[in-house]
Amino acid sequence: MNAPFGLKADTLALPQPYLLFLGDTVERGFAKTALGLRDWAPEKCVGELTLAGAAVTTGLPQLTPVEAYAQGARALVIGVANAGGVIPQSWRASLVEALEAGLDVVAGMHTRLSDIPELRETAALLGRRLIDIRVPPAQIPVATGRKRTGKRLLTVGTDCALGKKYTALALARAFAQRGVASDFRATGQTGIMIAGGGMPMDAVVSDFEAGAAEMLSPDAAPEHWDVIEGQGSLAHPAYAAVSLGLLHGSQPDVFVVCHEPGRTEMLGTAGYQVATIEEIVDLTLALGRRTNPNIRCGGLSFNTSALDEAEAAEVMWRESKRLGLPVADPVRGGPAFDALVDSCLA
Amino acid sequence: MNAPFGLKADTLALPQPYLLFLGDTVERGFAKTALGLRDWAPEKCVGELTLAGAAVTTGLPQLTPVEAYAQGARALVIGVANAGGVIPQSWRASLVEALEAGLDVVAGMHTRLSDIPELRETAALLGRRLIDIRVPPAQIPVATGRKRTGKRLLTVGTDCALGKKYTALALARAFAQRGVASDFRATGQTGIMIAGGGMPMDAVVSDFEAGAAEMLSPDAAPEHWDVIEGQGSLAHPAYAAVSLGLLHGSQPDVFVVCHEPGRTEMLGTAGYQVATIEEIVDLTLALGRRTNPNIRCGGLSFNTSALDEAEAAEVMWRESKRLGLPVADPVRGGPAFDALVDSCLA
Repeated sequence: MNAPFGLKADTLALPQPYLLFLGDTVERGFAKTALGLRDWAPEKCVGELTLAGAAVTTGLPQLTPVEAYAQGARALVIGVANAGGVIPQSWRASLVEALEAGLDVVAGMHTRLSDIPELRETAALLGRRLIDIRVPPAQIPVATGRKRTGKRLLTVGTDCALGKKYTALALARAFAQRGVASDFRATGQTGIMIAGGGMPMDAVVSDFEAGAAEMLSPDAAPEHWDVIEGQGSLAHPAYAAVSLGLLHGSQPDVFVVCHEPGRTEMLGTAGYQVATIEEIVDLTLALGRRTNPNIRCGGLSFNTSALDEAEAAEVMWRESKRLGLPVADPVRGGPAFDALVDSCLA
Repeated sequence: MNAPFGLKADTLALPQPYLLFLGDTVERGFAKTALGLRDWAPEKCVGELTLAGAAVTTGLPQLTPVEAYAQGARALVIGVANAGGVIPQSWRASLVEALEAGLDVVAGMHTRLSDIPELRETAALLGRRLIDIRVPPAQIPVATGRKRTGKRLLTVGTDCALGKKYTALALARAFAQRGVASDFRATGQTGIMIAGGGMPMDAVVSDFEAGAAEMLSPDAAPEHWDVIEGQGSLAHPAYAAVSLGLLHGSQPDVFVVCHEPGRTEMLGTAGYQVATIEEIVDLTLALGRRTNPNIRCGGLSFNTSALDEAEAAEVMWRESKRLGLPVADPVRGGPAFDALVDSCLA
């Protein structure tokens, strides 16, 4: 099924800078692409565009497509996701407006931009590009399970959208600052936009999921680290297949569990409690040992964005003591994060 | 990505009866489609066709495509799989010969028949059909995790290709013989050929894997059983993503672990030991509880085809005693199998 889509995600060269499109999103967790681009590639973002009813902002200036183009933007990036990755009817007028203003459109949804006739025709008429970054490379092989050289770290989570990409980016940056050779390996739309390449793991056919993860982090020098962006959660009733294929194919030496204290329900799935940290540690060890018997938990990454500094420090200290593992919020950094980095590299 | 493939697997009506094509296969495990059709749909099979070098047979008469057509066959079915689901060059002359003899060609490989120019052109010229049954329906939704009505049983395994489909078919038949309303739910190519419908789970995009399993076994009457064919193994380094999505989406009340005593290495993956039964029971409980807190192991199904009757009885008795669970070989049947059925329905 992959054969018709010959575009290799890691050969994309995206038009820049971006106007970030947030649609009419009211849930912050769904805006992780826009928020991630603002934080990790601010030099590529000139502003944002929202629709009536939106309740999420990146804090960047509100610009129309015409204004954004005048300020140098060359692409509108759909910076928001929703369950199923559909592009709703209500967004389409804005996307057409962007094409008319001179912008290309970049998206990583399951709905492909070129499958929407209105966009396909407008883009063709005006000579604009519709770039779908959620298209896996052709000819992904079945995983072999062969142990690869080099070291690997994978971020995993108690839910979706709580900091697995952030944590991987922050760890890769910290490794580099310490002079440790490393690469951030992107597995989702935002990460691919930031890194300029990677593997859209959730768009890969299930039979090749672990094989895609093997492709993403090839043999490397013995002391080199691939820091791999996790996806979903082994405990998520919709997305665990993605998480397990990524875990098996990544063969991580170290994993870091990402968690948001205070979140109770899983994103997009009514009635499911967020998994406990212990459950994720246990499942990751039990399943991950299959392809790397030496897998270990390097520590925990907490998303404490909903807490003040004192509350955050208290919950991280308490959980670190309870679990006997380093706990840090990579956004806050500090000595706790240094300790997490130490533990991962130990 | 599913949108272009509008064919619903469960609306297929396959041309019958079949000539079973075995290629040049030397490994019995890869011929499960042909062997399954012989055992579960013998009225649909007129004979087999093998190439030089083949070391596997169904025991059915060897027929050329012309002879098969003369005996009533209307389709050549590719009854053999290989790692990656590729149709090798060495098979193509036989497939063209079949089209020329008047047969349609049915396959469930990852390579699509219509992507091979030689076959596409010959079929078009002669008015034959190329039917790919490994094409998921369009618009599979993301899983919701909502608990569905009715009862469900899933077969799981310590490896691929050791009896998960056989076990599900035998249990569904036994349930029906006891007057228990039930449906066999097919998840792979052979099962779909036998049942005439189902969901090709390993061809589904990972993000929708659990959602596809939810579609496959919809709400049913409270006492109705869906008996769902398992795929892969939670411990298989290549295919566990398929197994976990199917487990989460199936929400089974009962699972049966399928195992082949004496098999040591996992199929198609050098150096990996077959998982232990206890490991699969533990992983299935730990992961399956997420979508059905009442999940339980109904017992074990052993593939003892490599053993004589006394050896088979001995190993089943010993393992049943050791594990405290019923153990049966559905091919051998008998009181042990009745006990397994009792345990599943208890």
